[in-house]
Amino acid sequence: MSQLAQSVLSGDRLSLARLLTRVENDTSEGREALDSLFAHTGKAHLIGVTGAPGTGKSSLVNQIALSFRKLDKRVAIVAIDPSSPFTGGAVLGDRVRMRDLSGDQGVFIRSMASRGSLGGLAQATSGVVQVFDAAGFDVILIETVGAGQSEVDIARLAHTTLVVEAPGLGDDIQAIKAGILEIADILVINKADHAGVESAERALKSMLDLAHPVQKVFQHHGQTLQTSRAASDPQPANPNPALWIPSIWRTVATTGSGVPELIEAIQEHAAHLRQSGEWFMRERARLSAEFDLFTYQALMERLRASLPESKFEQILDSIQKRKISPREAVNVLLNMGR
Amino acid sequence: MSQLAQSVLSGDRLSLARLLTRVENDTSEGREALDSLFAHTGKAHLIGVTGAPGTGKSSLVNQIALSFRKLDKRVAIVAIDPSSPFTGGAVLGDRVRMRDLSGDQGVFIRSMASRGSLGGLAQATSGVVQVFDAAGFDVILIETVGAGQSEVDIARLAHTTLVVEAPGLGDDIQAIKAGILEIADILVINKADHAGVESAERALKSMLDLAHPVQKVFQHHGQTLQTSRAASDPQPANPNPALWIPSIWRTVATTGSGVPELIEAIQEHAAHLRQSGEWFMRERARLSAEFDLFTYQALMERLRASLPESKFEQILDSIQKRKISPREAVNVLLNMGR
Repeated sequence: MSQLAQSVLSGDRLSLARLLTRVENDTSEGREALDSLFAHTGKAHLIGVTGAPGTGKSSLVNQIALSFRKLDKRVAIVAIDPSSPFTGGAVLGDRVRMRDLSGDQGVFIRSMASRGSLGGLAQATSGVVQVFDAAGFDVILIETVGAGQSEVDIARLAHTTLVVEAPGLGDDIQAIKAGILEIADILVINKADHAGVESAERALKSMLDLAHPVQKVFQHHGQTLQTSRAASDPQPANPNPALWIPSIWRTVATTGSGVPELIEAIQEHAAHLRQSGEWFMRERARLSAEFDLFTYQALMERLRASLPESKFEQILDSIQKRKISPREAVNVLLNMGR
Repeated sequence: MSQLAQSVLSGDRLSLARLLTRVENDTSEGREALDSLFAHTGKAHLIGVTGAPGTGKSSLVNQIALSFRKLDKRVAIVAIDPSSPFTGGAVLGDRVRMRDLSGDQGVFIRSMASRGSLGGLAQATSGVVQVFDAAGFDVILIETVGAGQSEVDIARLAHTTLVVEAPGLGDDIQAIKAGILEIADILVINKADHAGVESAERALKSMLDLAHPVQKVFQHHGQTLQTSRAASDPQPANPNPALWIPSIWRTVATTGSGVPELIEAIQEHAAHLRQSGEWFMRERARLSAEFDLFTYQALMERLRASLPESKFEQILDSIQKRKISPREAVNVLLNMGR
């Protein structure tokens, strides 16, 4: 194991920051350290927090971190949202609130630069999360924005996914996207002291109820997970204790109101995952996806190394001139590389 | 060429619908048809339209389609936004508005189901767009929501990307995400008859001005594209005619106000792309990405076929037990497959 990886295991913060940069940049030193640290991973509770800008998601992440600190958990925050104060998109008030966390040795905040390449951001985030996991952080909060594919990919990293809404963000129904409800384990209506909280909750509930009657079976990296999507207040009797029914929680992140109850729900979800075996299955799906990605990268590297770059340009020329389709060109290429 | 592909070329709408389904489901018949139709592609103007729910983006897409019809262009709409009326997430008013397009033989609307797999939606969308292109549609509107990676991936398909905003959608500055500004060729403030349009435009302008002084050089699939990101009203003199400066347009999709001017801007952008050579470069980047994806799929297929499924499960067991890291496991696997 490298000196850097060892220093990270021994709790040195400067080494941690350095290794995170190497991992984010996907350097060979970073890769080696990830390989050697891998045996130390698998202990942290990964919590994804996603939602539209303006929901106060970052302040909520802040409060969740503070609450876990009170339970003596070490907390890492990985911020991927460009509008987050953690990544630099904050207004002054947010920055002031961030001070609650600074100076606390049990907290480490890392902001990620958004990446253009396919799978790039999810891969870098996965590496950063693994470093935190190996370094002994008990809770890793992953903050993302929106409902795009990258958020879904990143949510797949998490054991527990929180979807944050807020009252008065335009049309309540339209603001809740189908994709995001599918990944939600826990729904939070933040800014619950604002007008419109009732109608926001009603909209969420009816969307969840719509999804309720049919218990969804969805494919998760080839593994069939059974889950049901519904919530109401009071919570209904759960017909199948192996199924998790997403619940709705109200919070006011500026005062911390509702956050202790939310923390309890998060911990309940972790317990549910462990009891039902879903913790294991989600982890396996995640590791399988990572394995696939690395396989792809290794195969592409071999292929590129086996043929001169000019050959690829020639093929691309033929495609662009519509002499050959991309799929036909792949067949030609792979038969050459044999 | 298959009978189905030939019927699509001859303009049969039922065959078109059938082929789109085959392509979306990635069947072997769909793949073969795509290969044989590929020589007929490369003529359509692909226009991406993205923005948050509640911006009236779908109504705007509707109006843009109507305007292009008046110019005697054949128009296809590919809707990927789950809140869009085209994909079924509409309120009644939207559905009524959609009737403007129904019955017109020069318009074809296709909604896409969101896909979970990596690259799945972008790949399916690319296939659907190619079918429309081959079938002789002059303009293909691709409607997406949000600013996630999948939107950026889909925007890469388009020659021209419109980003739609609306006044009063929460915090104007927060609503505009860095990622989405990077992909915008044209910015639209829809619902321009609503209060707050001035401040929304000011917010957009100042964000664009911030990005202006430094001309960004960004990597697009390995090719360096130079571009500048700025707009103001009146439009400033463009210091470099090869650079496109995104402009801001106001529209009211419910009345059609501002749409003819927007159409002109879209056509100007197409002309700019052709004159500057960027049309060619964007297309090459897109075809290159598609080629990479197919290469990956073919390589993975070969690898999977070369080893029993149980071997993969064994490897995954070792990874999950932390005996070996995913990257180390890939090395072991590829040396076995040799």
